[in-house]
Amino acid sequence: MKNLLELRDEIDVIDKQIVALYQQRMQIAAEVAEYKIETGKKVFDKDREMEKLATLSALGDSAFNRHGIRELFEQIMSISRKRQYQLMTEHGIYEKPDFEELDTLDYKNARIVFQGTEGAYTQLALKQYFGEDAGNSYHVETWRDAMEAIARGDADYAVLPIENSSAGIVSENYDLMVEYGHCIVGEQIIKIEHALLGVPGAKLSDITDVYSHPQALMQCARYLEGHREWEKHSLKNTAMAAQKVREDGMRHKAAIASRITAEIYGLDVLEEGIQDNKQNATRFIIVTGKHVFTRKANKISICFEGAHETGSLYHMLSHLIYNGINMDHIESRPLPERNWEYRFFVDFEGNLNDPAVQNALRGLSEETTRLQILGNYEA
Amino acid sequence: MKNLLELRDEIDVIDKQIVALYQQRMQIAAEVAEYKIETGKKVFDKDREMEKLATLSALGDSAFNRHGIRELFEQIMSISRKRQYQLMTEHGIYEKPDFEELDTLDYKNARIVFQGTEGAYTQLALKQYFGEDAGNSYHVETWRDAMEAIARGDADYAVLPIENSSAGIVSENYDLMVEYGHCIVGEQIIKIEHALLGVPGAKLSDITDVYSHPQALMQCARYLEGHREWEKHSLKNTAMAAQKVREDGMRHKAAIASRITAEIYGLDVLEEGIQDNKQNATRFIIVTGKHVFTRKANKISICFEGAHETGSLYHMLSHLIYNGINMDHIESRPLPERNWEYRFFVDFEGNLNDPAVQNALRGLSEETTRLQILGNYEA
Repeated sequence: MKNLLELRDEIDVIDKQIVALYQQRMQIAAEVAEYKIETGKKVFDKDREMEKLATLSALGDSAFNRHGIRELFEQIMSISRKRQYQLMTEHGIYEKPDFEELDTLDYKNARIVFQGTEGAYTQLALKQYFGEDAGNSYHVETWRDAMEAIARGDADYAVLPIENSSAGIVSENYDLMVEYGHCIVGEQIIKIEHALLGVPGAKLSDITDVYSHPQALMQCARYLEGHREWEKHSLKNTAMAAQKVREDGMRHKAAIASRITAEIYGLDVLEEGIQDNKQNATRFIIVTGKHVFTRKANKISICFEGAHETGSLYHMLSHLIYNGINMDHIESRPLPERNWEYRFFVDFEGNLNDPAVQNALRGLSEETTRLQILGNYEA
Repeated sequence: MKNLLELRDEIDVIDKQIVALYQQRMQIAAEVAEYKIETGKKVFDKDREMEKLATLSALGDSAFNRHGIRELFEQIMSISRKRQYQLMTEHGIYEKPDFEELDTLDYKNARIVFQGTEGAYTQLALKQYFGEDAGNSYHVETWRDAMEAIARGDADYAVLPIENSSAGIVSENYDLMVEYGHCIVGEQIIKIEHALLGVPGAKLSDITDVYSHPQALMQCARYLEGHREWEKHSLKNTAMAAQKVREDGMRHKAAIASRITAEIYGLDVLEEGIQDNKQNATRFIIVTGKHVFTRKANKISICFEGAHETGSLYHMLSHLIYNGINMDHIESRPLPERNWEYRFFVDFEGNLNDPAVQNALRGLSEETTRLQILGNYEA
């Protein structure tokens, strides 16, 4: 039996030969791209690829090798397509996504809408992002209202929570981003510290009813497990809960909201830091109606569908991986009116002007049934 | 310029050479595996692979090719490892996951726990799965209680909702599966038809307060948008909501729950089919305390962590793809106490006895920081 070193030497010799052949192949692929550019042919010829894969994999001398050859050439052809997309981009053949590049975003005199009432976490995010003196902000009752305000042109920007570090995504806002097709231009992370608030003089033992937003109730699940007898009521946001407790003026009612809300509505803090995760934070997105980005934007959010076939999610992600793009996050959400089918949301690093990003987006848009760029913004 | 056919002929010649080299390489990989099996060495030698990737990619004559060569050999080495895992499995060197194979699951005299009260959707799922005369079922207040009942041995099986076709996953139950480490032994899909229920004689115009489970409220979001003036209250489940409306006996209170609940609690159906998605369905899981599966089991649910590096989620999924395994679904959930890091839940087709599954799981467990098999059951 050969020893490990001898075997590895043999592998090294083979690998160098594979590298040489691979580079020859890529050279020819470039010539194919030129041909396709001149004749206006599409890069992705699925039938031809399927046929080639069948022919090559039939050369395998075992089931494992037949499978491996197929996988290997799926990848080689995929890299080859990416090279062709790249050459097309270099030739200026690229349908840029309909995004306008701006020098800076203009926040002066911007009308900003948020969901909730005075003191909502969203308002804290708004102030942190736009500055304390962000003039023209107003609030609406629901997230959909905020999206509508943008759609109708009543507001220039909306601030919406998109993800909490312990409760996970705010799925409704993912769905609304797809439905409205607005554009994310920024994000703001806010540390969440929930407190239990009661009317002045109320004691913990008085409490029988707790009011808050469903996400906030979830974020305090362990604390609330210790008070099972309390009835939980869902309101549109945490600040509204504080407002309601104040207005109702009953000692048995408490709100789960921020400390700041206690000051605004004149409530007592009965307990502090009651969220499960002491590092709890929420990420908010800043949304506008126009598709714009700036040169400084370094994060892209996209949504795609069409990953129903085996492994096709995997192949979709390959467009990011092969272009050397860092993927931050992936989420799936059910497709409306279709059971057990999903759309995927991916956040990754980059700018719409980067060639690597353009190649990845071109590949994704040619190989998914639907690709939506949700925004390119500063993270 | 050469025409497309000539170029393709050249590619075909190159591809055949690559196939031949690839098969030689796999042959040597098999010898390496034998060596490793005899000497008890680990298959995955990350340092050696990193070094090889650096050497090979340096042979590239352009940035694109250097990147492509790296990707190509990451895949070849990954397939090679999979071949080695396969050979080790053939040699019986395989730490089987601690799952016991049973001929059938014994549901006779089983004590079954569900969350909620009489008439909850979960109870419908329970009856459909275990049969109408499933004797020993009882209910508890929270999902955690149901998990606890299994942990303490008070119940043999628990029934829990895991995903709704329009609202998405029941994230709390994903988290509880990880926390408790119980085993999924079955699933049951139930069509969800929500109705608005009031006390006998109540009219739609009387309603000011609606009681239901937060997921049910979400599932009726569009309907509730039309009745913004109603106050929404979250309860532990839909049947409890019906029970509360009945007990309170007030004409202005309504519950969102199933039609069946109306019969159980003697309520009137004010409106039917009020969920957004007319095809709305919920998937429930059947959970037990022992790690068991049967030969007929054809779906596997796993959870893994350790996909923090660039593209590592992608590489994790490759273990399924390269073993020819169909992936049904992927979800991510935040890791507790760590912000913006995630664990992934994947459902795929197969049985723990399948060599392909064993190879995939071996690869995943060697290359993730944590792999948990949540269950292998009939879909």
